[in-house]
Amino acid sequence: MTKELMIGILGGMGPEATVNCFAKIINNTPAQCDQEHLKIIVANNPKIPDRTSAILNSGTSPIPNLLESVDALVSAGVDFIIIPCVTVHYFVDELLQSRDVKILSILDAVTENIRNVHPQIDTVGLLATDGTIASKIFQKRLAASGIKTVVCSDSMQQQVMKAIYQIKTDSKAGSQAEITRHLVDASNSLVSHGAQGIIAGCTEIPLALTQEDIEVPYFDSLLILARTAIAYAGRKPV
Amino acid sequence: MTKELMIGILGGMGPEATVNCFAKIINNTPAQCDQEHLKIIVANNPKIPDRTSAILNSGTSPIPNLLESVDALVSAGVDFIIIPCVTVHYFVDELLQSRDVKILSILDAVTENIRNVHPQIDTVGLLATDGTIASKIFQKRLAASGIKTVVCSDSMQQQVMKAIYQIKTDSKAGSQAEITRHLVDASNSLVSHGAQGIIAGCTEIPLALTQEDIEVPYFDSLLILARTAIAYAGRKPV
Repeated sequence: MTKELMIGILGGMGPEATVNCFAKIINNTPAQCDQEHLKIIVANNPKIPDRTSAILNSGTSPIPNLLESVDALVSAGVDFIIIPCVTVHYFVDELLQSRDVKILSILDAVTENIRNVHPQIDTVGLLATDGTIASKIFQKRLAASGIKTVVCSDSMQQQVMKAIYQIKTDSKAGSQAEITRHLVDASNSLVSHGAQGIIAGCTEIPLALTQEDIEVPYFDSLLILARTAIAYAGRKPV
Repeated sequence: MTKELMIGILGGMGPEATVNCFAKIINNTPAQCDQEHLKIIVANNPKIPDRTSAILNSGTSPIPNLLESVDALVSAGVDFIIIPCVTVHYFVDELLQSRDVKILSILDAVTENIRNVHPQIDTVGLLATDGTIASKIFQKRLAASGIKTVVCSDSMQQQVMKAIYQIKTDSKAGSQAEITRHLVDASNSLVSHGAQGIIAGCTEIPLALTQEDIEVPYFDSLLILARTAIAYAGRKPV
């Protein structure tokens, strides 16, 4: 048996997505008892400044807080890191300039998943934060693998962004149904503009939108990241 | 505003209970945005040997693995530690002999909760692992606050222990209903022997038994621990 690696989750962006990522790793690890599960350290650091604001409005840089969490994870002994927040991947290259640590990119994981599972897809729809959309981090990574991206119209994107922040703050069932409806509307609009699949390109979105809600293939970035981490740690996800 | 403390969760016993504890802290923290949540480090170390086996059968001591996780949490900067596993509290005194760290006891948290919320209760029923029952850690702590404990008959305790290990391994809906039925039967039996409330004295149990399932007050040790940690960290739980 190869040595299992210890997973580090650099989380807190937001905390619910972090819990969800952690749960998805546990639920997708083949185990008949506690001891067959993987070692994981979670650094839930919700104090990291808003990522979209940092990208679009020259808001406070998240880099110092991110470095603090990277250092905490490395001190605790992790072998590699995943970050269950898509938008913050805009800052990963800068992060890696000052720390020598392996970070599994959610952009790579999702792109490779599309290529492996649905090789016929050449155009996907991207649901994500304003920061992710404007920075084009996801569109560029997809393009590098020959996949075109369609994004929402300005008014539809406003609804998506509002939904993402509502997921972070509001857990009432009525609101959840409305949030899901906005995300389904956005997905359908992307499909009508040529998308053959939909990427949940923000880790909050899988909390409100699932494959059952839409008809084309759905790429849950959080689930894909969790399964990629299990495989990288040396186990075959269930 | 007083300084918020960073919470350490020494977890992995089992991983699902650890996810549940983490989620309960997030869900019970008053927050309108990511940044209002608390900093938390989770050390999910499922390799810690079985606690009941260590207590009853002179199995491998969990102490070395526990120390490894304590050190990981302290290195990562936590101010105090909670352990979402009741049985392992048998080893906490020994742990504290070699490490100078604050551990909030789940035994203290539950006992104080009973005293504060239901001061009229003088006898509680305890659902827990064989290791917790045999070591009497919970019964002694409750007795120190004037609360008597009733435990299951041997045959009923076998059902409870089987249910706890099933919760760890089996997530099929049919099995879950059967597990819940066994735990409800055990609770009813304890009530018929004088229990005025039921303690979920193993952190797996709240995954299968809730207040809705039983008629007397139910003390969810995991929820109580989560809320106690939020308060100790300097915030008022919602």
